Amino acid sequence: MNAATQKQSISQMMDTIGAAARQAAVALANADSTSRDGALLAAADAIRNRSNEIILANDKDMEAARERNLSAAMLDRLALDADRIEAMARGLTAISQLPDPVGNVLAEWERPNGLRIQRVSVPLGVIGIIYESRPNVTADAAALCLKSGNAVILRGGSESFNSSRVIHQCLVDGLESAGINPHAIQMIPTTDRQAVGYLLSSMNEYLDVVVPRGGKSLIKRVQEEARVPVIGHLEGICHVYLHASADVEMATEITLNAKMRRTGICGAAETLLVDAAAAQQLVPTVCGALIEAGCEVRGDDSVRSLVPAAVAATDEDWSTEYLDAIISVRVVDGLAAATAHIAQYGSGHTECIVASNQAAAEEFFTDVDSAILLHNASTQFADGGEFGMGAEIGIATGRIHARGPVGAEQLTSYKYVVRGSGQTRPS
Amino acid sequence: MNAATQKQSISQMMDTIGAAARQAAVALANADSTSRDGALLAAADAIRNRSNEIILANDKDMEAARERNLSAAMLDRLALDADRIEAMARGLTAISQLPDPVGNVLAEWERPNGLRIQRVSVPLGVIGIIYESRPNVTADAAALCLKSGNAVILRGGSESFNSSRVIHQCLVDGLESAGINPHAIQMIPTTDRQAVGYLLSSMNEYLDVVVPRGGKSLIKRVQEEARVPVIGHLEGICHVYLHASADVEMATEITLNAKMRRTGICGAAETLLVDAAAAQQLVPTVCGALIEAGCEVRGDDSVRSLVPAAVAATDEDWSTEYLDAIISVRVVDGLAAATAHIAQYGSGHTECIVASNQAAAEEFFTDVDSAILLHNASTQFADGGEFGMGAEIGIATGRIHARGPVGAEQLTSYKYVVRGSGQTRPS
Repeated sequence: MNAATQKQSISQMMDTIGAAARQAAVALANADSTSRDGALLAAADAIRNRSNEIILANDKDMEAARERNLSAAMLDRLALDADRIEAMARGLTAISQLPDPVGNVLAEWERPNGLRIQRVSVPLGVIGIIYESRPNVTADAAALCLKSGNAVILRGGSESFNSSRVIHQCLVDGLESAGINPHAIQMIPTTDRQAVGYLLSSMNEYLDVVVPRGGKSLIKRVQEEARVPVIGHLEGICHVYLHASADVEMATEITLNAKMRRTGICGAAETLLVDAAAAQQLVPTVCGALIEAGCEVRGDDSVRSLVPAAVAATDEDWSTEYLDAIISVRVVDGLAAATAHIAQYGSGHTECIVASNQAAAEEFFTDVDSAILLHNASTQFADGGEFGMGAEIGIATGRIHARGPVGAEQLTSYKYVVRGSGQTRPS
Repeated sequence: MNAATQKQSISQMMDTIGAAARQAAVALANADSTSRDGALLAAADAIRNRSNEIILANDKDMEAARERNLSAAMLDRLALDADRIEAMARGLTAISQLPDPVGNVLAEWERPNGLRIQRVSVPLGVIGIIYESRPNVTADAAALCLKSGNAVILRGGSESFNSSRVIHQCLVDGLESAGINPHAIQMIPTTDRQAVGYLLSSMNEYLDVVVPRGGKSLIKRVQEEARVPVIGHLEGICHVYLHASADVEMATEITLNAKMRRTGICGAAETLLVDAAAAQQLVPTVCGALIEAGCEVRGDDSVRSLVPAAVAATDEDWSTEYLDAIISVRVVDGLAAATAHIAQYGSGHTECIVASNQAAAEEFFTDVDSAILLHNASTQFADGGEFGMGAEIGIATGRIHARGPVGAEQLTSYKYVVRGSGQTRPS
């Protein structure tokens, strides 16, 4: 097939997928929660029943990944075993048990002329999800969309293509056993990158929103090419700020957890800011604990004078999401300087203040403009599950539609229903 | 200046405006409601004090418009007189009296580990508004943005450039007298269309959202060029559906009002659907009243057999927003056929069912997917003021962020603030 023919065949394929998704979304919007939840439970069963098949497919993906010399971290994200497959199945069950986010009366009021107005939650419609290598995202993301009554078009990373395809089939099994249109969950059956381009640029008619989940290069591509609305997930350059009033022990525990519990997640801390007024007490203890835990500390001059093992931070460090056991540390002159640093270098994801002084925490909450702000708690709580949302499709750093953890409720819109008794509008 | 130099100077100008807006937005996010409301009241005073100046500028716009042979409807939209200026000032006062949409706790809950989570409303940041000829939009749109703590970049139609410029100056007077950064409300000081292109395609860094208000060609341009999030306002192809159980008198009054009260607004009805089972009773009476009121009726064969004065509707009529004294009328075979017609030809704006049968109304509410659905009330209630929102920037037909009337509350986002006591996340 020559390039032009292939391009045409991809656009035809994508249009077919889009039209089928739109049709499924209409049916899904009227499917009751019992059948949507039933499909999730049946999909969980299917995943358990087909676990051998999933592992065989995953072996194929792993083999190809090793041949391509992918990093250990990438291989770990890609790998599935019995435990991870069981966790996936349990995740579907948990999502089925969440309250139905659709059909809820979000607000209601009556007008002086007797009109009764309700704002009622409805699904968004059709959601496109573009994600990278983790195959379990296939199950999580599709389940959240189904829970919220949305049809979904999945486009996973090429590395996990075989694994995702079997998982997708389990989800379709679930839909079919619940009598739901199987096009409610579709997966793009090719790893051709042109399909992503077409999804972003030419599917306005079929797609209500695109949710990208992945690294910088994916996000950059989406920002450049998207002609459909995007619920954006930028990088997480998360800060821990130790106020002068911070308790040393709490500061140490929170910083260690925020950085080192898991270094590869978007809620992991990347920069530590320490008040100059308490740097003498805080910096050696906190940085010592980080170094002892295997973390590389990159500090400014003040930090290096207190921690000889620290290497020199460059300006680039302040805007780097390491996703690794590395932290940049800077001494700042009070809360305003911390806030200014975060405004300049942060990504609007999650920031934490450790402080005994309540007023300082409240000031931090007012002055810092990020999706999630924490006082005296680890940044690694930036997670839909930890927020009590059951599951999440990611953390949105944009300000349009959803911000922070995006769970089932955030994948809905609303409509107004107005009940009258013959009212006409005066001229 | 040659074209390349001009292009460069426009991009420089726009970047300067964007950076200033971003800076103003930061200051504005922390300005208390007293100063924001104070600025609105001072702007109302400035509009009253400068009314002669506004009228002189408007005369200039009107003269140019007449020279360009703009339609009577366009001239009417453009014209300002003492009454309209007073209405603009009163609009600002009314917006100042609305409740503050910023800083409200939208939800709060506590987690088993003791974390207390609040979702708190915050401004969106910087809003770009592109609108057409009506100069009063300058005041309304800017006031809603200011009320909700957002900085705004206004780009009005070239026809109203002189009028809008003086109105904009009144708003800046208001900001200055309240001690707010005057860049919180900026107007693009040129009618060059390249400025709109740059706003849509190259200002991601500065703009959080663009709100287009205008006709089809503007919306089309925005859809094609926008690289920033858009809160969309498509056309309003609004339907009135007369169920077989409709009371004839109520059906007549609502249809007349929905079509003829004002024909040029987006909530005006464009298509009437009548149940076949009651067509004999309903069609002659309702269409007769419309014709008597000066409305042209374009009907299908069934309608024309009952109303000899009706002209034949073509397929194009079902998807036309007339914004004029014309209505398309079709006889449909029950509620499902009405719903299918709306799904095929509607624009997702506003639809009304007239029915005595409550169950039919509820079915209509479930099955029709539009921003606003009304039972036994005129579609012309599709308006933020009529909804009790005080004012609106338009009716959003998209599903992302805001849907239906977009008032001050809809121009906000939120952030999460989480209060802990040293919590770290278990591995």
